[in-house]
Amino acid sequence: MRPIGVFDSGIGGLTVVKELTRQLPGEDIIYLGDTAHLPYGIKSADTIIRFTLDNILFLLKQKVRLIIIACNTASSLALDAIRGHFRIPIIGVIQPGVKQATKITRTKCIGVIGTRATIDSQAYESQINRINPLIKVISQACPLFVPLVEEGWVNQPETITIAKKYLKALIKKNQKMDTLILGCTHYPLLKSVIGSVLDRDIKLIDSARQVVREVAQILQSENSTRGNSRVNGRYKFYVTDDPEGFTHQAVRFLGHKLSQVRKITDV
Amino acid sequence: MRPIGVFDSGIGGLTVVKELTRQLPGEDIIYLGDTAHLPYGIKSADTIIRFTLDNILFLLKQKVRLIIIACNTASSLALDAIRGHFRIPIIGVIQPGVKQATKITRTKCIGVIGTRATIDSQAYESQINRINPLIKVISQACPLFVPLVEEGWVNQPETITIAKKYLKALIKKNQKMDTLILGCTHYPLLKSVIGSVLDRDIKLIDSARQVVREVAQILQSENSTRGNSRVNGRYKFYVTDDPEGFTHQAVRFLGHKLSQVRKITDV
Repeated sequence: MRPIGVFDSGIGGLTVVKELTRQLPGEDIIYLGDTAHLPYGIKSADTIIRFTLDNILFLLKQKVRLIIIACNTASSLALDAIRGHFRIPIIGVIQPGVKQATKITRTKCIGVIGTRATIDSQAYESQINRINPLIKVISQACPLFVPLVEEGWVNQPETITIAKKYLKALIKKNQKMDTLILGCTHYPLLKSVIGSVLDRDIKLIDSARQVVREVAQILQSENSTRGNSRVNGRYKFYVTDDPEGFTHQAVRFLGHKLSQVRKITDV
Repeated sequence: MRPIGVFDSGIGGLTVVKELTRQLPGEDIIYLGDTAHLPYGIKSADTIIRFTLDNILFLLKQKVRLIIIACNTASSLALDAIRGHFRIPIIGVIQPGVKQATKITRTKCIGVIGTRATIDSQAYESQINRINPLIKVISQACPLFVPLVEEGWVNQPETITIAKKYLKALIKKNQKMDTLILGCTHYPLLKSVIGSVLDRDIKLIDSARQVVREVAQILQSENSTRGNSRVNGRYKFYVTDDPEGFTHQAVRFLGHKLSQVRKITDV
C-alpha cells in the first residue's frame, strides 16, 4: 500500500501528521515542508499555485496514493485551480473544517481566523454559504500568529495581548458567533491562548482533526485503509531549506524528536 | 551612464533607495524585491546564496553598473561567497555600518540587532574585530521585528513591549554598549521605538545611510557619479510576487506612492 503525502509551507502541517498518527497509525507518510518559500500566507495566488504544483509533483514522484494539502493558504488559493489535473485524491483543509462548523453552530454565526491570503480569498465564506446560505460568516486575518508560533512564543504575555486585539476585532463584527474555525495549521498551538481570550462557550474547530477524519472515510470507502494493521507506519520528512530549524521546531508540534529530515533541492 | 541596481528580499531595501534619492538624486535606480521568497532572515546560507545569485543575474540583465545588496541577511551570508564572480562592484550593507560604528564607539562595546540568520552568521562580529579586535560585540536576534514592520505595527504598544524584551536581553550582555547597529533594513522604521526603549546616549547606526555614503565614494573615485547633474534619476521597481502588497507598503518606506511596480517571473 503506497504512502499518504502531506505538504505545507513549513512546520504547521505537522499538526495534520500528528492527527494521522493518532487516527490512522498504520499509514506510511511522506511529508514535505516547503521551508525555502515560507510563509505562504502573505503571498499571491499565482505564486502559491506555482509552489503547490511543485510540491505535488515531488510527492507524486514518491508514489503517494493520496495528498493532503496541510496548509489553509494553499487549500484556499490553489486547490480549486489544480485538483482536476491529477488522478489521485487531493484533499485540502478548508472543506472538512467547514463541514464540522456548519454542523455544530447553533447561532448560525461562524468565525474564521487565518493568514491574510486565506482570509482575503474568502474561501471559507463561499464554502460555508454553499452548504447553508443563511449562516453568517465573520473573519479576521491574524498575520502575526504564524511568526509568533514559529518563534515558539505560544504562551508569552505579548502573544496573549496580540490575540486579544485580533479576537476583539473579530467578535465586534458579530457577537452571536458560537463557533470559531482555526483556519491555519499553526493555530492549534495557540489553542489555549485563543481559548483563554474567548468566551468559553465558543467551540474551536481544528482543521487538522477534521481533515484526517475525511481522509479516513475516503480510504475506507476505497477499501484501501491500513487502519491498525500494523502498530506504526513509516514516516519520511523532507524540506526545501536547511533541515535544522525544522527538526528543532518539530518537537513542539509532534511532542517528540524527528530522527531524520532530508533537504531536497529539486523543488 | 548605466543605473544602480539594488535588491532586497522585499520592501526593507527601500530604506536604501530613500537614502540614494537623498544623497545621489541624479542616479537611475533599478530595484528588485524578491517578495516570492521573503523573508530571508529565517533561511539557510545555501538557500540565500541561491536567491542572491538569481537577483544579481536579473539586475545584470538590466545593465546596472553597481549592485547594492540592500539586505543584511544576504550581505552576511552570501556576499563573500559570490562577490568574486562578477565584474561590477557589489556592495553589501554590513561593512559600511561596521566602519561607522567602530569609528564612533567610545566604550569599545558595540551592539548588533538583526534577523536570526544575520546574527547566527556572526558577520558583524568578524568584520568589527577585523578592524579592531579589542572591541566587544554583543548581539541579539529580533525575529519578530520584520513581521511587525511588514504589518505596519511600528508604533503599537505590543511592538514596544517586544522591543523592550529583545533590547533588555541585549543590554544585559554588556551594559557598556554605547553604539547599536540596526542590522536589518527594516529596522530604521522602528528607530523611534528602539530609541525610546534604550538609554538616549546610545547611538543608532542605520546601515542604509552608511552604504550610500560608501557607494557615493566609489562612484566619485571612478569618476562615474551623476551627482546632482539632473534633478531626479529614473526609478524602476520590480518584484517576484504580486506587486500589490509591495506598492501598498512602499509608502511607509519612501514617504510617497510608487506609480508602477512590475512583477517578473523569471527569478
